[in-house]
Amino acid sequence: MEGQKTIGIVGGGQLGRMLTMAAHSLGFKVIVIDPSDNCPASQVGALQIKAGLYDGEALRQLAKLADHITVEIEHLETKILKKLSKSNVSINPAPETIELIQDKYEQKNFLQSKGIPVAEFKKIDNYDHALEVLKDFGGKMLIKSRHGAYDGRGNALVTSRRVLQKKFAKFANRELYAEKVINFTKELAVMVAKDIKGNIKTYPLTETVHHRNICSETLVPARVPANIQKKAFSLVNKTVKHLKGSGVFGIEMFLEGEEVLINEIAPRVHNSGHYTMNGCLTSQFEQHIRAIAGLPLGDTALTSPAVCMVNILGERDGPTRVKGLHEALSVPRTYVHIYGKSPTKVDRKMGHINSVGDTIKQARSRARQARKHIDI
Amino acid sequence: MEGQKTIGIVGGGQLGRMLTMAAHSLGFKVIVIDPSDNCPASQVGALQIKAGLYDGEALRQLAKLADHITVEIEHLETKILKKLSKSNVSINPAPETIELIQDKYEQKNFLQSKGIPVAEFKKIDNYDHALEVLKDFGGKMLIKSRHGAYDGRGNALVTSRRVLQKKFAKFANRELYAEKVINFTKELAVMVAKDIKGNIKTYPLTETVHHRNICSETLVPARVPANIQKKAFSLVNKTVKHLKGSGVFGIEMFLEGEEVLINEIAPRVHNSGHYTMNGCLTSQFEQHIRAIAGLPLGDTALTSPAVCMVNILGERDGPTRVKGLHEALSVPRTYVHIYGKSPTKVDRKMGHINSVGDTIKQARSRARQARKHIDI
Repeated sequence: MEGQKTIGIVGGGQLGRMLTMAAHSLGFKVIVIDPSDNCPASQVGALQIKAGLYDGEALRQLAKLADHITVEIEHLETKILKKLSKSNVSINPAPETIELIQDKYEQKNFLQSKGIPVAEFKKIDNYDHALEVLKDFGGKMLIKSRHGAYDGRGNALVTSRRVLQKKFAKFANRELYAEKVINFTKELAVMVAKDIKGNIKTYPLTETVHHRNICSETLVPARVPANIQKKAFSLVNKTVKHLKGSGVFGIEMFLEGEEVLINEIAPRVHNSGHYTMNGCLTSQFEQHIRAIAGLPLGDTALTSPAVCMVNILGERDGPTRVKGLHEALSVPRTYVHIYGKSPTKVDRKMGHINSVGDTIKQARSRARQARKHIDI
Repeated sequence: MEGQKTIGIVGGGQLGRMLTMAAHSLGFKVIVIDPSDNCPASQVGALQIKAGLYDGEALRQLAKLADHITVEIEHLETKILKKLSKSNVSINPAPETIELIQDKYEQKNFLQSKGIPVAEFKKIDNYDHALEVLKDFGGKMLIKSRHGAYDGRGNALVTSRRVLQKKFAKFANRELYAEKVINFTKELAVMVAKDIKGNIKTYPLTETVHHRNICSETLVPARVPANIQKKAFSLVNKTVKHLKGSGVFGIEMFLEGEEVLINEIAPRVHNSGHYTMNGCLTSQFEQHIRAIAGLPLGDTALTSPAVCMVNILGERDGPTRVKGLHEALSVPRTYVHIYGKSPTKVDRKMGHINSVGDTIKQARSRARQARKHIDI
């Protein structure tokens, strides 16, 4: 189409793929930057600039071709994005927000400075300092890489001097900080959208379940009392108001007793929001495209009483072969989304399943049953 | 992905485009046959064999590359499809079904032979014969081309000898038949899906509104008494049982007093089923892909009390430019789907709007309000 607007996405993995589909429905053209051949987004019609996410030249090229730039991941070049945001292209969320979130320690500092409760944390300057912090935290702490960490990569639980020594060797040359271990009873998450005027729409409160630090299930709506819901939404709204730029944000939280603590922010669509594709009036992907393209936000209401998302993680290393789709789709009110990635790898995110139901128990049982059938 | 199954679609227009999106979500690869450069399906990642829909060589090529073949339109080469269906590729719906539906006169004969009520109709052999039929039908009838007609093209209302003469000249060299004019109070439609085992799932009964013979609105659920609903579903089930092959079928009906008559069958996803994208648990596009790929059917329940679909038809001839998206999306619970076609032409199907609401009145008012804002 002549005069068709173009959305540029930094990253063309599964999030870029699902964003691309949503953008196409609204009549946009899509260009992604991604280093992999035949990346998931390019398979669904995104044009691909084959380059790494820190490639300044690729970013400049994208800015020339696109009307709106967004990201599917926060680990990317922000200095050039900042410069480009002064040109004709809109960049959302704001590169400053991405930069803030890239550094987990600065993210915590920021949250704390705004009066938002987070787990106790401390910067670690060196091994001796880390030993002190371990003592302060009662002999147990998490050490985390400040940069480039996701899905638990770059995090380690430290319970002794010996473990600390080992982890320090492993994380050599990485900037670290320490976090007190939270005895949480649940992990909660909320997807929240902000348009370019600052209007905010929140999706329902969800429970997330992690295995080996990777999100494995999302249960919606979260089974928590009304006062906890209220606390969570109040924190989420407060947090998002302070984040510059439009888009969808994923806010992960811990529930510890009656307290809600913010764990971390994703400045983008998020795994814990995949349930919206079959569970809400507007999917997080369409919502993000609306938000970054300067369009009004869609309704976030649930369309079924309960939804459960289960990730399809790889269970072996080798070429991808989707098996069991027939059996999985024979489960009532169950939807399978495959990302087109190959090869499969242990714990690689290959797809997800959404099941809806009258209760969480029913939706979860459906999604788990379907998951068992899929071999990828 | 290695070992990825491929869906072949004959036709890559808006229906092929939305089928492609649904197929990608389920992990399929898609190849379409379409004669137009940059056809709507190819824009969303379908590989395109650039050829006409009657091109036998292209069909044979598609059969070599695809595991499952389906169609987005019934006006295509069926003889070769019939031969190919004896090879390794599955073709659905059955080429015999497509062939039957291609000839509107044979379609009516078939329905009548199965005891399904249709408007009175007669074959027209020549002008003199047509004059007789006009007399029999009380001086008023529709003449219709037996082949290649859709969206009212190839149909004409005849109310006098003079009009008949004129239309006969216009339709020279086309095989014709005549239909008694029905004084319908409503036009109804149902999307219905059949899997390869013959299991049937029906979507809700809808009301369709046509302007200049083109579907302009679909209202769901239809505002008719329970006995009419029952009659309609009974006819739809009876009809679909007689159609060979799997897939989604669109069944259009007339309501005349207390009688329901079948008007025509589309052996494919259909404009009157576009509301399912934002109104039902499973869209007609995912449903069709499931059906033709031998997968179990999804649930067809509504996710909102009422849905209204309004077509975005071109209003001028020229390059496509989407305007008013912001205003349209500011209408509550409203979704816009753009097909990526250019140029725009008067009455060309450029996109559609789905609005959901608590009542038909509310959903319709939303969709119409949004439609007014879009200039394409």
